[in-house]
Amino acid sequence: MSPVKVFGHPMLTNVARVLLFLEEVGAEYELVPVDFVAGEHKRPQHVQLNPFAKMPGFQDGDLVLFESRAIAKYILHKYGGTAGLDLLGENSGIEELAMVDVWTEVEAQQYYPAISPVVFECIIIPFIIPGGGAAPNQTVVDESLERLRGVLGIYEARLEKSRYLAGDSISFADLNHIPFTFYFMTTPYAKVFDEYPKVKAWWEMLMARPAVQRVCKHMPTEFKLRAQY
Amino acid sequence: MSPVKVFGHPMLTNVARVLLFLEEVGAEYELVPVDFVAGEHKRPQHVQLNPFAKMPGFQDGDLVLFESRAIAKYILHKYGGTAGLDLLGENSGIEELAMVDVWTEVEAQQYYPAISPVVFECIIIPFIIPGGGAAPNQTVVDESLERLRGVLGIYEARLEKSRYLAGDSISFADLNHIPFTFYFMTTPYAKVFDEYPKVKAWWEMLMARPAVQRVCKHMPTEFKLRAQY
Repeated sequence: MSPVKVFGHPMLTNVARVLLFLEEVGAEYELVPVDFVAGEHKRPQHVQLNPFAKMPGFQDGDLVLFESRAIAKYILHKYGGTAGLDLLGENSGIEELAMVDVWTEVEAQQYYPAISPVVFECIIIPFIIPGGGAAPNQTVVDESLERLRGVLGIYEARLEKSRYLAGDSISFADLNHIPFTFYFMTTPYAKVFDEYPKVKAWWEMLMARPAVQRVCKHMPTEFKLRAQY
Repeated sequence: MSPVKVFGHPMLTNVARVLLFLEEVGAEYELVPVDFVAGEHKRPQHVQLNPFAKMPGFQDGDLVLFESRAIAKYILHKYGGTAGLDLLGENSGIEELAMVDVWTEVEAQQYYPAISPVVFECIIIPFIIPGGGAAPNQTVVDESLERLRGVLGIYEARLEKSRYLAGDSISFADLNHIPFTFYFMTTPYAKVFDEYPKVKAWWEMLMARPAVQRVCKHMPTEFKLRAQY
């Protein structure tokens, strides 16, 4: 049987999210490149996979999925048991499952809106504007860092009580932080994390995972050579 | 045993989401008012329930949860079976479950960012600024409506193939659209939905549900009397 296919480039955070969970469960997969600089994601072939013309697309036999978090959950439902992983907390009680859901939502609703503007201003906007683009909007960066410090303060208090966000086991909630935080750590503002020692230790624990290492090596930290993607 | 407690005001969309799923499963609950105009949600008593000082807070015995989507899933896990509802698609195959996850993410990542700025500009900002606030920012409204039309076009194509977004049964994905769409339908732009007949019919089907009716009657459509909330 052919392995599952992921359509996109691993430098994109939503593609990286899907690859991360495939690597965590040890599933075989094929990465099908989509040249987004050339606009391939807007062509009919890709829109059949993802009607919003975004990446990744995902195919498992006749099943076509989009939205990286939904794809990630499907991967965990399909392969998590074989891999001995219960990252969604579904094999524990409904209270443990609820804690994974709570901190998964916290990443999406509180953490991502705080950290992503810094990554957009420092990395993504300069990358997508040919020639390097304008300097980061410092007001946006400063406001986002203030918001991020608020979130990290709450994480610090949480990680004083449990080893990971949803409890003492690693979960979907923790791993969802990786793609954007990985890029944030390449900006001049990475040292913000040093103010929160529990958070910093948690981040280093996540980065030390072999599956995380395998995915991150395909995520560039040097964006000047735009033509190569 | 005491019923579960929801802390907040049902006019807030995230509170309404939680109440909606409690009503759908027929669970007994107590709504504990939090006077957000007076800033009660920022006081220590509420921050113990929700460290982000947002609403709702939720309590079931010793279990404290926040983030409305996570609370809603907990409610469905706890009471969905008894109510004969499988709104998360967990009793079907993993492919059906994945479709619920896909369209749940679509609501959060594509629909909400398109529809919410219109509701903010037309209702929420004028409400929170004493005296009625400024006129809506028409550029924001127009750009959001264009984005919303893009999303509704994709919904229209989807609803030509299935009765509801994730398939022929109603799911968590459909019901998550209610709080913001309910308010959107009170703005001068409600008629945008008339351009998408399958979407319009789907919306009317959702609004006809008794549980939806029970929650929406507590969501005001007249915001001039700010002092009463």
